[in-house]
Amino acid sequence: MIQGIAASQGIAIAKAYRLETPDLTFEAKKIDNPEEQIQRLEDALEVSKQELEKIKAHTLQQLGEEHAEIFSAHLLVLSDPELINPMKDKITSDLVLAEQALDEVANMFIDMFKNMDNEYMRERAADIQDVTKRVMAHLLNVTFPNPALIDEEVIVIAKDLTPSDTAQLNREFVKGFATDIGGRTSHSAIMARSLEIPAVVGTKNITETVKQDEMVIIDGLDGKVIVNPSEEELVTYRKKQDAYAKQQEQWAKLKNEPTMTKDGSHVELVANIGTPNDVEGVINNGGEGVGLYRTEFLYMGRSELPSEDEQFEAYKSVLEQMGDKPVVVRTLDVGGDKELAYLDLPKEMNPFLGFRAIRFCLENEDVFRPQLRALLRASVYGNLKIMFPMIATLEEFRQAKAILLDEKEALLKEGVKVSDSIEVGIMVEIPSTAVIAKQFAKEVDFFSVGTNDLIQYTMAADRMNERVSYLYQPYHPAILNLVNNVIEAAHSEGKWAGMCGEMAGDPIAIPILLGLGLDEFSMSATSILPARTQIRGLSKEEIASYKEELLSMATAEEVVNFIQEKTK
Amino acid sequence: MIQGIAASQGIAIAKAYRLETPDLTFEAKKIDNPEEQIQRLEDALEVSKQELEKIKAHTLQQLGEEHAEIFSAHLLVLSDPELINPMKDKITSDLVLAEQALDEVANMFIDMFKNMDNEYMRERAADIQDVTKRVMAHLLNVTFPNPALIDEEVIVIAKDLTPSDTAQLNREFVKGFATDIGGRTSHSAIMARSLEIPAVVGTKNITETVKQDEMVIIDGLDGKVIVNPSEEELVTYRKKQDAYAKQQEQWAKLKNEPTMTKDGSHVELVANIGTPNDVEGVINNGGEGVGLYRTEFLYMGRSELPSEDEQFEAYKSVLEQMGDKPVVVRTLDVGGDKELAYLDLPKEMNPFLGFRAIRFCLENEDVFRPQLRALLRASVYGNLKIMFPMIATLEEFRQAKAILLDEKEALLKEGVKVSDSIEVGIMVEIPSTAVIAKQFAKEVDFFSVGTNDLIQYTMAADRMNERVSYLYQPYHPAILNLVNNVIEAAHSEGKWAGMCGEMAGDPIAIPILLGLGLDEFSMSATSILPARTQIRGLSKEEIASYKEELLSMATAEEVVNFIQEKTK
Repeated sequence: MIQGIAASQGIAIAKAYRLETPDLTFEAKKIDNPEEQIQRLEDALEVSKQELEKIKAHTLQQLGEEHAEIFSAHLLVLSDPELINPMKDKITSDLVLAEQALDEVANMFIDMFKNMDNEYMRERAADIQDVTKRVMAHLLNVTFPNPALIDEEVIVIAKDLTPSDTAQLNREFVKGFATDIGGRTSHSAIMARSLEIPAVVGTKNITETVKQDEMVIIDGLDGKVIVNPSEEELVTYRKKQDAYAKQQEQWAKLKNEPTMTKDGSHVELVANIGTPNDVEGVINNGGEGVGLYRTEFLYMGRSELPSEDEQFEAYKSVLEQMGDKPVVVRTLDVGGDKELAYLDLPKEMNPFLGFRAIRFCLENEDVFRPQLRALLRASVYGNLKIMFPMIATLEEFRQAKAILLDEKEALLKEGVKVSDSIEVGIMVEIPSTAVIAKQFAKEVDFFSVGTNDLIQYTMAADRMNERVSYLYQPYHPAILNLVNNVIEAAHSEGKWAGMCGEMAGDPIAIPILLGLGLDEFSMSATSILPARTQIRGLSKEEIASYKEELLSMATAEEVVNFIQEKTK
Repeated sequence: MIQGIAASQGIAIAKAYRLETPDLTFEAKKIDNPEEQIQRLEDALEVSKQELEKIKAHTLQQLGEEHAEIFSAHLLVLSDPELINPMKDKITSDLVLAEQALDEVANMFIDMFKNMDNEYMRERAADIQDVTKRVMAHLLNVTFPNPALIDEEVIVIAKDLTPSDTAQLNREFVKGFATDIGGRTSHSAIMARSLEIPAVVGTKNITETVKQDEMVIIDGLDGKVIVNPSEEELVTYRKKQDAYAKQQEQWAKLKNEPTMTKDGSHVELVANIGTPNDVEGVINNGGEGVGLYRTEFLYMGRSELPSEDEQFEAYKSVLEQMGDKPVVVRTLDVGGDKELAYLDLPKEMNPFLGFRAIRFCLENEDVFRPQLRALLRASVYGNLKIMFPMIATLEEFRQAKAILLDEKEALLKEGVKVSDSIEVGIMVEIPSTAVIAKQFAKEVDFFSVGTNDLIQYTMAADRMNERVSYLYQPYHPAILNLVNNVIEAAHSEGKWAGMCGEMAGDPIAIPILLGLGLDEFSMSATSILPARTQIRGLSKEEIASYKEELLSMATAEEVVNFIQEKTK
């Protein structure tokens, strides 16, 4: 039994599928039959091509044309005579193994492209590297795993899952996953909740423990992984699985109910999404809207910016699916830990304190304006609200809003219809903005507190850095005071305040936030029904009466003990 | 004329001394007289040794034994037969130039040591690299500049100055400096103010503009550098130099006066220092105490931790020199941009949000306790106050204070005298602590706001990153609200609040801080007399009457316009 961090609820039982790069080293030796080696190389190239065609088709179907293009680029590499012919020549002239010819020629090209000043060519280096690994695996007869190729029920075991790995996971076959690294707010954890598959992350050593095809239980409720379970354990966990399914059925009864507290207050429970595909989950889980649509997924895993039309289609799709329910779209939030190769963002000493999100957009209007135009054009298809990320000063908000109004005016002049009731708000994730929320409330239409960043900046502790993870304290009284300040500021100007960080779906935080008067809670779709169940058992007035006491506490521990005592 | 950032006041006129590594490339060729090359190598080694002895002696005198040891290590390298003999062998066997033998053998050792897991050996690689450059320069007959070797009046021109560069600058000869990079809070700027020499930093391209020995004027008042001044410009700047000298004389009259506002309030003007040598400047500039003694200089530029006794001597020296005036000593603040090779701190993705200062000390009591013991032992020699840096939670403060009390008890048991009136306070440089200052005020004896970090965390903008430097806004209303919160919290519990960031000495901020009720302003020693002059012209009550108006402003620009209008 291995303890990790519960990243996505539920119980999964299946055999392990290790998603890892195999050992691709080989022993160099002189050969005497070059034709044989050339044939081996050609065979490996051919089977790699077939595999890539399959992955490409799968990606096209799951994620759309733009993501599938990556694999078109890979297929082109495999057919490029400028790359393949020198390999064959090397085999004949130097009498070396196909492995060595592949390795040396590919590396020559990789080194050449890598050092070029041109971002496009540097990406070609990455393509050649990816493809070479696949061909090498076939030469060496080892399995080169690919999540898109999984076609039976498994639990994926990996060091970490990249965004493109998780994007390729097929929910039909992948029943759950466990990783060595990551936390509740890491990308793979967010994706697991979005895919609604149980996941345990941050196990530290799961890849060292589990062998291919071993039976594994993922307990996404308690953050446990059981390897090679005994019959008894299987029975226990099947029961737990059933109980969880029953609880889900209970929750499901609240799907079409509004979220009311015991004393009759209504709050809004909405969902965080990354792509139009996620909307189905929001509706199935009774979401009253979308509180955070992270548009950067549109920009990721591809080689150039999405066009205005492509963005328009995505936004329109989400808005139409949600009907008259609110959809809060966050404008592009890149930089920090989210890099986009084709944008050539600067390398920074402290990327979390760097040139990202609105800071980047305000200096790159050629990127920002098409997104705003796409949003404005889509606005007539639903209930759109636009939200700017990483706002630290009122000047930034004013500048961003001015660009938005400028594009709106331009569209209207072109005769394009634009909704007249788009609310324009901001993420509150920088301490300065939380501190002077009162000044902001006069100019914005709404606030949404982004706790993941707000906590890391308020505590000056990188949330990805394990050495200081003890300082990532959502219940620290300073966080509660800042959140309270934002809510009071909003209400004093007749505006609403939401929250779209992890904290909004956390059962310990929910009563506190309710007591502080939060209007909107945005969370993973799968957290909505449990949260609704919890909130129906809470009295808002009662918790509000403890507010001053809570806000004047000295430590997070005091806060947690107090609220657990009061709401048990 | 080049515009940069005014880093240290005053006017300097002298010829340029370019502090830069010369071109050390050479053309490889076969030779036929190996004895000649061996002789060349030996000559270059010998003259390098003489040079290093001179630098070592200079460093010993200026900075003490521990810093001089670096150069002992360098001298050892130059005499190491294991390094030198292979060079000579190579000349004889391969018939190559001394340059090539030096280069290849040194690089072999550097590569070997560099890849070792041992931090000590990796440092040896750096030593060999430094020394090899110097020997190569002599072989190539090019000048390898060293700040310690300057023996005529010059203005230093450099890309940037490292802490060890600035530590070696001799105030007698170095009349000023200008650099390509850096800002008002960068290390070189702080050192310039501490050395009281005019400096302009952040010029971007001064090193591309100024040639060796060209005449240069440094205008540290307006942040300008004039290269090859005309006769007319020289006359203008000599006048400006005289006027500044006269102003300094005016200021000097206030040296022994208390700092009183026009309406009779007293505030304390104290100084930031880095070493016991800086105390002279504090006294000469009429400092009423030391508001920040940065103890990390004791730990820098050496190969091992300073001993408890060594620290004791340094603290005792500062306390004795300052008499009964307060001396606030900050415990070790490493990590972030301040690395110590021998402590083997982790490499981090966001070092400013990482494992540093009190976070490091609480986990490394073997480093922390000797410093606290040294401080406690020194406490009987003056008016000591101890301050913990980077406090984010009350738990951290409680833990640090408990360790201090534990050491105090141990010393008393050993019969060592310890002062009974040591105040124990904290830096307020993390937003969480500023937000719940009221809770902290019940337990700490004082606050000192560290604005350099507080601003960077509150605005989520790395203060060293030029792409986001527009967000480093000391006058942002959020900063003023946080500072106000700290001051009000302190006063509500009968404690005092100071400030030891750059903002405390800034003529625009001073009236605001006075109005908010700040008790202690800690700044560069050279800013004290101008600040005292300014404060004597201000009415605290009057500015305090604008407080609510100031705190509810929306932008930094509004704040600046308002305060300049009200105090002009």
